[in-house]
Amino acid sequence: MSHNVAILGASGYTGAELVRIIATHPALRIVALSADRKAGMQMADVFPHLRHLDLPKLVTIEDIDFSDIELVFCALPHGLSQSLVRDLPRSVKVVDLGADFRLRDPAAYEKWYGAPHAAVELQKEAVYGLTEFYRDDIAKARLVAGTGCNAATVQFALRPLIEAALIDLDDIICDLKNGISGAGRSLKENMLFAERSTDVAGYSQGGKHRHLGEFDQEFSRIAGRPVEIMFTPHLVPVNRGILASCYLKGEAKALHAALAARYADEPFITVLPFGQAPGMGQVMGSNFCHIGVVGDRKPGRALVVATLDNLNKGSSGQAVQNANLMLGRPETEGLMLAPVFP
Amino acid sequence: MSHNVAILGASGYTGAELVRIIATHPALRIVALSADRKAGMQMADVFPHLRHLDLPKLVTIEDIDFSDIELVFCALPHGLSQSLVRDLPRSVKVVDLGADFRLRDPAAYEKWYGAPHAAVELQKEAVYGLTEFYRDDIAKARLVAGTGCNAATVQFALRPLIEAALIDLDDIICDLKNGISGAGRSLKENMLFAERSTDVAGYSQGGKHRHLGEFDQEFSRIAGRPVEIMFTPHLVPVNRGILASCYLKGEAKALHAALAARYADEPFITVLPFGQAPGMGQVMGSNFCHIGVVGDRKPGRALVVATLDNLNKGSSGQAVQNANLMLGRPETEGLMLAPVFP
Amino acid sequence: MSHNVAILGASGYTGAELVRIIATHPALRIVALSADRKAGMQMADVFPHLRHLDLPKLVTIEDIDFSDIELVFCALPHGLSQSLVRDLPRSVKVVDLGADFRLRDPAAYEKWYGAPHAAVELQKEAVYGLTEFYRDDIAKARLVAGTGCNAATVQFALRPLIEAALIDLDDIICDLKNGISGAGRSLKENMLFAERSTDVAGYSQGGKHRHLGEFDQEFSRIAGRPVEIMFTPHLVPVNRGILASCYLKGEAKALHAALAARYADEPFITVLPFGQAPGMGQVMGSNFCHIGVVGDRKPGRALVVATLDNLNKGSSGQAVQNANLMLGRPETEGLMLAPVFP
Amino acid sequence: MSHNVAILGASGYTGAELVRIIATHPALRIVALSADRKAGMQMADVFPHLRHLDLPKLVTIEDIDFSDIELVFCALPHGLSQSLVRDLPRSVKVVDLGADFRLRDPAAYEKWYGAPHAAVELQKEAVYGLTEFYRDDIAKARLVAGTGCNAATVQFALRPLIEAALIDLDDIICDLKNGISGAGRSLKENMLFAERSTDVAGYSQGGKHRHLGEFDQEFSRIAGRPVEIMFTPHLVPVNRGILASCYLKGEAKALHAALAARYADEPFITVLPFGQAPGMGQVMGSNFCHIGVVGDRKPGRALVVATLDNLNKGSSGQAVQNANLMLGRPETEGLMLAPVFP
Repeated sequence: MSHNVAILGASGYTGAELVRIIATHPALRIVALSADRKAGMQMADVFPHLRHLDLPKLVTIEDIDFSDIELVFCALPHGLSQSLVRDLPRSVKVVDLGADFRLRDPAAYEKWYGAPHAAVELQKEAVYGLTEFYRDDIAKARLVAGTGCNAATVQFALRPLIEAALIDLDDIICDLKNGISGAGRSLKENMLFAERSTDVAGYSQGGKHRHLGEFDQEFSRIAGRPVEIMFTPHLVPVNRGILASCYLKGEAKALHAALAARYADEPFITVLPFGQAPGMGQVMGSNFCHIGVVGDRKPGRALVVATLDNLNKGSSGQAVQNANLMLGRPETEGLMLAPVFP
Repeated sequence: MSHNVAILGASGYTGAELVRIIATHPALRIVALSADRKAGMQMADVFPHLRHLDLPKLVTIEDIDFSDIELVFCALPHGLSQSLVRDLPRSVKVVDLGADFRLRDPAAYEKWYGAPHAAVELQKEAVYGLTEFYRDDIAKARLVAGTGCNAATVQFALRPLIEAALIDLDDIICDLKNGISGAGRSLKENMLFAERSTDVAGYSQGGKHRHLGEFDQEFSRIAGRPVEIMFTPHLVPVNRGILASCYLKGEAKALHAALAARYADEPFITVLPFGQAPGMGQVMGSNFCHIGVVGDRKPGRALVVATLDNLNKGSSGQAVQNANLMLGRPETEGLMLAPVFP
Repeated sequence: MSHNVAILGASGYTGAELVRIIATHPALRIVALSADRKAGMQMADVFPHLRHLDLPKLVTIEDIDFSDIELVFCALPHGLSQSLVRDLPRSVKVVDLGADFRLRDPAAYEKWYGAPHAAVELQKEAVYGLTEFYRDDIAKARLVAGTGCNAATVQFALRPLIEAALIDLDDIICDLKNGISGAGRSLKENMLFAERSTDVAGYSQGGKHRHLGEFDQEFSRIAGRPVEIMFTPHLVPVNRGILASCYLKGEAKALHAALAARYADEPFITVLPFGQAPGMGQVMGSNFCHIGVVGDRKPGRALVVATLDNLNKGSSGQAVQNANLMLGRPETEGLMLAPVFP
Repeated sequence: MSHNVAILGASGYTGAELVRIIATHPALRIVALSADRKAGMQMADVFPHLRHLDLPKLVTIEDIDFSDIELVFCALPHGLSQSLVRDLPRSVKVVDLGADFRLRDPAAYEKWYGAPHAAVELQKEAVYGLTEFYRDDIAKARLVAGTGCNAATVQFALRPLIEAALIDLDDIICDLKNGISGAGRSLKENMLFAERSTDVAGYSQGGKHRHLGEFDQEFSRIAGRPVEIMFTPHLVPVNRGILASCYLKGEAKALHAALAARYADEPFITVLPFGQAPGMGQVMGSNFCHIGVVGDRKPGRALVVATLDNLNKGSSGQAVQNANLMLGRPETEGLMLAPVFP
């Protein structure tokens, strides 16, 4: 049995990654692709690597007939989904890959995104899309809000530790190394090859990154008290991947045991043997997340490292995983592509 | 139905790529993996990106029981396959990814590889593994010799043109740009990241590259007269990919028409619209080959550009494609993975 | 003694490279920097790597007082220099790094740049800035036209061979590998890191690249008959460098001898021992050009490879070399910076 | 006046960087170059980017006549300098770029390097080569021990803050991003281009990195009590550069003020305006170090970021800076090369 899906915002990197994943997914069928500025073009002209696929032409959203579409992936720039989703037929399920529905609290949304939310009711209805922790809600949801890619990586590392009260909540430091594709396809001088290829630099330092809104929401919820982590992303010259180095106060072996137990049955999350930490290259192009725990020479200090592919497990892979649940498919269907190395 | 296969030389890049492809192949089952120097290790320790797979431990070849193995992939360094294949049970089919069985003529082998062949009878029996041109022979073969990755790329560009007598056979110039993984995992100073990451340089210039043996054999056979191309590979700082720029004397539109006609029904080879040339990035991680033809401002001159992933279509993907044929499976089975971009 | 200079268009890559070179030049003093869109900013904010230098603030060209300026470097986008130079005081010497004055023939200019020239008299006055071949004219010139970076690389490889009538003029094929900085700092989707970092692709194939206008002009002039080469540039994922692989018909040893003799006394051009070809990484950040000659297995065929840094010897280094001549300074002054490796 | 110098271990990256810097240094003259395994070769064959220089041939150390040599740079693998320096004539000054003389305490040396020191008297005599903090001692020293490249970066960020008692000494977390050249030219599988170019991974996590010996020695000395930082380096796919992100407890503005005051007159160390953090790309190829301070949203928390080029300011540039002092030259002589960007 096949489910008809549409991708809105198909000319960006997460749109392309959705098409790449669905290309070998046995149960999803792409029946519409939108891209406002590139409407009228073939995907093969926008993304020559998808040339072998038989895909519908890019159109504007207005030109899509949603009547025979079961699920829509919204891979639109932040801010565009809220009114759009409001106007879709209620029969259509939605997986939103943007930031519009990640925060449940309208005040928090306005704080981090600088404007009031345009669809507050939907905001409340939306289920937070971190599959491994909201699986049941996602399966029943009409609207799922994909997480930020940084937010996913760090939550995989920390949620079980906060739940089990194993770490000092006031001293959580997360230093991230981020592949450039996370910045999307928009034109900025500092995203040019010549500017990035020999540079490594932090951005949004000092607690200004919007994914902090997600961290605050989720970690405070689990802990039952306010939790504010320090979080600094750094651009590194690779296309794909996030590596989060989390410096924690807690007993390293206990942290490792908690993570290993929590993820023992998760198909996409692997905890390495104690003392090993993963590299970004070992999950590239896949829906897997690898986590490692290393104890420090100072007792009571630990390093927890998590890595995933920002475009895949951090975005489009997560989206398909959620869509599988929403459509009643096996959760891993179409997502077992092995990482690409070298 | 499932076919048991073994991979000999599983700790190199083509070995890893075979495992990656077979990971989502519905009909192949890996029952043995060999790696002499790393025998006893788990694949997860040699290649952490394959950690999610349930794979047999690495062993020495001597420790493999071939009795229940239907097909063996040999991903061994050049020179090691010849005696090894000679000693395998005749019931086992073999796809060799190395150079040992590519040349049919013992004298040519000795000329290019500097030593007499150790299994001349097998050399004669081996079928040349360029699937799209030896499909029927491969389906019936016991031993298939995978082509060189450069050899595959350039042959896809030129064979139909030589067959149709559309180009000047005495003025064929092929300038290749080669991803670094083609050099394999062996330790050489000039393959270190620090040496290669800001360098582009030719190698084996002037007609010294061993793949010329394959070109001479194949092109002379098609043409019915000796053909010697000029061929220069250049290392470029990407992991995967070969881009062959072929400078030819012939009518560009006729060349395009011949290529388009020849490959119209090929599932893995795409000819772009006339005047467009492909980039290496659009086939990365896949079994696809893209070909383009551009006419020059000088009448009667044309540029034919072909690109593929050296580890996949140029080696391990081709090997699985051939194995599919040899085992009676659909030729494209397990090979439709879309390219990874960005 | 110190010479006051200005740089117009200082916010682009060639502008920054001029500042970098002049930073340790003992006799040039930067007294004005212009950048229209970034006027009012400090160079340290536009180019943080120049932060240690005491530089004038960026201004608009209109705000520059040219009365105490001896020489101006124009690093402006193509098309902007022609009227600008026309309006400068005649007392100011000009080194133009753009394309506006490279072609002497107004018809050729219009053919390649698609519009008539706005300062035809100046176009005729301008001296072509390939220092090693126009040294005496440059020393006496008021206006010097910097060459294209590709044009410089290929001319270093071929001029002595054409002058000595050692190669077949109807079969010159030049395949170039080009660092990305050659595309400048302008915002284009295909210049983003994520698009370029795993791609290698040709552009302006088939005789459409504007540097062909320079090749045609110069090579035909030397040969005394029309010469049209085949020339294809390819983007490779490095910041700096051009590697030109020139496929020629001629006796390799004779070509080598001619090049070695011609460049024996040139401080910036080195001819490698016969049979060796240079890599792009060995000239990065410098004003040097390395050339190698390799004979092919086919008698009468040769490969000549030349490499230089497009931003330095191919543009800003050449500009300073010419300025040194125009100002009566030693030609190599400030330009002996060794290449950066690794 | 010119000083004769020798470089021992000239075939490694720091050796090459010494030659590159000295190439335009007005007062140093290289009269001997050693490289045991490559003795007999020309530098141009080991490092083609140095081909334009007139350099002595590589020899073994035994073949060097030290009688007319004023200063020796030892760029040897760890462990080789100790006995070698012991045997040099006392008239020769020595700058050691390796680890042999960095730790003053024989017990600390044995703890971190796993063997007793072979020249304990020299170990005590050696001056720690962090120029900006040991300037006077270095000027009078016969033997200067170059710092670790990581050790230099982090000390530039932290020393003034520890001296001024502005940060919590029990909660110092330093996350480093390291260019690959820091691993040197030795052959390891995980240093191949194919392995590193799409990977980011930590190493020596958990307090095992040998540079911790330096941190412990220096920071405890300044603080007058034991100080143990958390320190994790990560390999990122660039050739050169270290970016240290230091997570501290202290008032960000006070930290900034202390750093700005301390480095106000330092020619090579720049403190950015408050709230800005540097990127690795802005010091590449130079002897500069850039430092930035950003306050966190959590009061009393700060991020201090320091970056330098590991081969230059972190090693060979520091060595020349120290040699300048030891030879009575101006400290900045030959070291004002501007960073290379892009």
